[in-house]
Amino acid sequence: MSNQMLTPPTLSVKTAGREHLLNQQGKVIWFTGLSGSGKSTLANALELQLHQQGKHTFLLDGDILRQGLNQDLGFSDKDRTENIRRVAHIAKLMMDAGLIVICAFISPFELERQLARTLAGDGRFIEVYLNTPIEACEKRDVKGLYQNARAGKLGNLSGIGSNYEIPANAEVTIDTSQTSVTEAVKKILTFIKM
Amino acid sequence: MSNQMLTPPTLSVKTAGREHLLNQQGKVIWFTGLSGSGKSTLANALELQLHQQGKHTFLLDGDILRQGLNQDLGFSDKDRTENIRRVAHIAKLMMDAGLIVICAFISPFELERQLARTLAGDGRFIEVYLNTPIEACEKRDVKGLYQNARAGKLGNLSGIGSNYEIPANAEVTIDTSQTSVTEAVKKILTFIKM
Repeated sequence: MSNQMLTPPTLSVKTAGREHLLNQQGKVIWFTGLSGSGKSTLANALELQLHQQGKHTFLLDGDILRQGLNQDLGFSDKDRTENIRRVAHIAKLMMDAGLIVICAFISPFELERQLARTLAGDGRFIEVYLNTPIEACEKRDVKGLYQNARAGKLGNLSGIGSNYEIPANAEVTIDTSQTSVTEAVKKILTFIKM
Repeated sequence: MSNQMLTPPTLSVKTAGREHLLNQQGKVIWFTGLSGSGKSTLANALELQLHQQGKHTFLLDGDILRQGLNQDLGFSDKDRTENIRRVAHIAKLMMDAGLIVICAFISPFELERQLARTLAGDGRFIEVYLNTPIEACEKRDVKGLYQNARAGKLGNLSGIGSNYEIPANAEVTIDTSQTSVTEAVKKILTFIKM
């Protein structure tokens, strides 16, 4: 038995029909950046704003998914890759459901971000790169991760023991050490014309 | 670095808010049964009916997911378990988005179906067991899988080379060799009061 032997069914209800019913177009808004760069905070503020406008949204957050679906994955390059591969597919499925899907993941590698973009399709994927300097992220250090990494107690932290590849094609770039949450959300909403 | 060191954020938009906006309650309707028992056909007909009523739905189909998110998985007991574990989590996420999520998976093992039920929570999970006799499934054999299995060319087919555990707690049981698609959909809609 192999996946190549399967014949996927043709479904009657399509994305367009779901979007018509929801009165909106599905999208993926993808936040990428170092730990402490402000991804979860901004994603949450953005979702709240969209929700209050009556938009149908869902937020996929890295730390939340790692306690459920992705609890089997660690922080090696291989596991980080698989982490984002799964999320890219789930974001696409939810977008096909007609939702505005907001993703908040370090997502350190260009290849997986590219996969997420390709799956969502042109014009439906908005990459928001938080280029907050690592010094500012480290100063916040809400989770104590940088302190542990500097003390040599924690390997694999993106930007210290693990690589973070700067996005080449981000639609929006924000340094949250220079921009308030309100301004940042406004910038993204202006970009997506909402 | 480990998942236990993470501090998942508290999100502002909750399931109740999303459901209020969608004017419906999220649910998981889970079809289980042998290959050829009618899962995809019924799931599709049910989704179409709900969609035409203005309900917001999504259909997760085993054969479709195995070409995308779950393309890395085969048909060993271990991979079948992982296949359903992932789907159980995704169905829960989509239900939290407020959607009526329809799942069509052989899902041969009670433990993973139980996981899906536990994640969705009481009263939100409706298990539909298609107890179509294997002889009827084999007679249909839309994908030619039974023929190959009987010829010894195909291992791991549920009901022949791989185990299928009969559901202990299905909310609805339908034999599609005795019940028409229209009647079957009506039976499920009556059960979920829609």
